[in-house]
Amino acid sequence: MDQKMDQKMDQKSKAELLRELHAGSEVLVLANAWDAISARLVETEGFSAVATSSAGVAGVLGYPDGQLIPRSEMLFMVKRIAEVVDVPVTADVEAGYGDPVRTALDVIESGAVGMNLEDTVGHELIPLAQQIGAIRNIIAVAKSAGVPLVLNARTDIFLAKLGDESTRFDRTVERLNAFHDAGADCLFAPGVTDAETIGRLASAVKGPLNILAGIGIPTIPELKKLGVRRLSVGSGTSRVALGALRCFVRQMRDEGTLTPLATEAVSYAEVQKLMTRA
Amino acid sequence: MDQKMDQKMDQKSKAELLRELHAGSEVLVLANAWDAISARLVETEGFSAVATSSAGVAGVLGYPDGQLIPRSEMLFMVKRIAEVVDVPVTADVEAGYGDPVRTALDVIESGAVGMNLEDTVGHELIPLAQQIGAIRNIIAVAKSAGVPLVLNARTDIFLAKLGDESTRFDRTVERLNAFHDAGADCLFAPGVTDAETIGRLASAVKGPLNILAGIGIPTIPELKKLGVRRLSVGSGTSRVALGALRCFVRQMRDEGTLTPLATEAVSYAEVQKLMTRA
Repeated sequence: MDQKMDQKMDQKSKAELLRELHAGSEVLVLANAWDAISARLVETEGFSAVATSSAGVAGVLGYPDGQLIPRSEMLFMVKRIAEVVDVPVTADVEAGYGDPVRTALDVIESGAVGMNLEDTVGHELIPLAQQIGAIRNIIAVAKSAGVPLVLNARTDIFLAKLGDESTRFDRTVERLNAFHDAGADCLFAPGVTDAETIGRLASAVKGPLNILAGIGIPTIPELKKLGVRRLSVGSGTSRVALGALRCFVRQMRDEGTLTPLATEAVSYAEVQKLMTRA
Repeated sequence: MDQKMDQKMDQKSKAELLRELHAGSEVLVLANAWDAISARLVETEGFSAVATSSAGVAGVLGYPDGQLIPRSEMLFMVKRIAEVVDVPVTADVEAGYGDPVRTALDVIESGAVGMNLEDTVGHELIPLAQQIGAIRNIIAVAKSAGVPLVLNARTDIFLAKLGDESTRFDRTVERLNAFHDAGADCLFAPGVTDAETIGRLASAVKGPLNILAGIGIPTIPELKKLGVRRLSVGSGTSRVALGALRCFVRQMRDEGTLTPLATEAVSYAEVQKLMTRA
C-alpha cells in the first residue's frame, strides 16, 4: 500500500473515532488549538480530539476572525496542527470560504477528519436550501474521497443575534434539524449560554448538540445533564493564553519584574519535549 | 518613489530607531512575540520594539527549537509579525541557518530591521574567525541593501555550558568584544542570571549588553544599575502563555469548569480590535 492510501486509511479510522466520541458516556470537550504547540499541549493533557479555532489561527497569521483569512492559509495551519498530533483533528473552516466542497477536500488533504460549517457570512444567513445542498455535497465528496468527515453544522442565529429575539429558538431548531436531515453529524448553536435554553435546545434537536463555551456557561457536568454532547471552547483557549501574556508584559512594564517565568511558564525543556516526537 | 523604495526608507528609519533604543535612558525590554497577535499585543501595551522568539515561532509551525525549522518558514512568520506592527522588529534567526548572509537578506525582505546571530550550532561553537567574517558580511550586505540591520551578536558559552566553567566568563568577553570590533551593535550573553556576573560582564564588554530573562534574574531596575542595555524574554513570553493554557485545560479536565474565560481571557472584541488595523 502506498503512503497516500495508508494516510487515507488512518484518516478514515480517525473520522470514525471522532464520530464515536459524540456518542460516548461523556461530553466531548474540545479545547481548541490555534497552532502546532497548543495542539500538542492539549493532546498531551489527555483530550481525545483537537479542534482548531478560526479566530485563533487568524490571529497567528495576522487576520481578524470572520472569513478574512484566505482558505489556503487557514488550511496551512490546520495541516501543521494535524501533522503533530495523533488524535483526530476537526477544523474550524468558518462558512467554507465561498466554496464549501473545495474547502472540505482541502480539509481532508490537510489530514483533519472533521469540519465545522457555518451558515452565516458577515451578518447574512445563507439560505437554508443552499446550506442543505452544501452539507449534502460535502458528505458525498468526503465519502468518495475515502474520508467520511465528521460534519458539525452550525447556525449563528443566537451568536450573531439574527432576526427577532422571540423567533431565535425556533429558527435555530428548524435549521439544525434540517442540517441533521441532510446528514450533518453534529449540530452547533454557539451563543446560547443559559442552562434553560441549552436544555430545551438539546431536547428539540435530533442530533448531538454542540455548545460554545462562554462567560457564565454551566459547568461541564451540568451541560452533560442538560443533554449537551459536545463543548467547544472556540477562541477561549487562545484568549486565556493571550490574557496571561498581557498580564506578564504589563507586570514587566509597570513593576519591572518577571516572576511569571518561575510561577506560570511551561519550562523550555517541556516545550522541546512537546515538539520532539518519535 | 515606488512602493519598494518607500518600504526600504521606512525600514531604514526603523533600523536607526532600534539602534538608538540601545542607547536610551532605560533598558530596552523585548517581550518576544511568536505570531502576529502576540506581536500586536506587545506593541499595544507600549513596548518600543518587537523581537521574535525562535523557539516560539518553531512551536507555532511544529518544530522544536534549535535551527530545525527551515529558514523560509522562520522568515515567513517574521514577515507576518513585521507586517502587523509599526514598531521596529528584530528577528531571532538563530545561527543563520547555514548561510547568515542569505538569512540577513531574507530578514530585510521580511520587513524586520534587526537580527540575532548565534555562535553555536548544536553544542559546537562556530570558530571565532568564521563568526567575525559572518558579522562583517552581514553588515556590508545590509548596508548595500539600504537597511542597516541592527546586529545582535550572541555567544552561547554560558547558555550551552560550553568548555570548562572557570573559563566561560573570559571566553564570553573575548568573543563578544571580537563581535563588537567586527561591527555588531549589541552583545548577547544568554544563560547569565546572577547579578554579580551580569555586572562584571556589562563592565567588561565594549558594546551594549543583552541579557536573557530567566528564573531568578534581577529585576529590570536592578539590571539597569548593573549596566545591562537590553533584556530579551526569549521564549519566556510564549511559555507563560502556554502555562496559562495548560492550567485552563487541566481545570476543564479535572473540575469541569471554565472560569478563566471570565477572569483571565482577553475578550473576543479586544482580539478583533488588535487584529483590525487601519
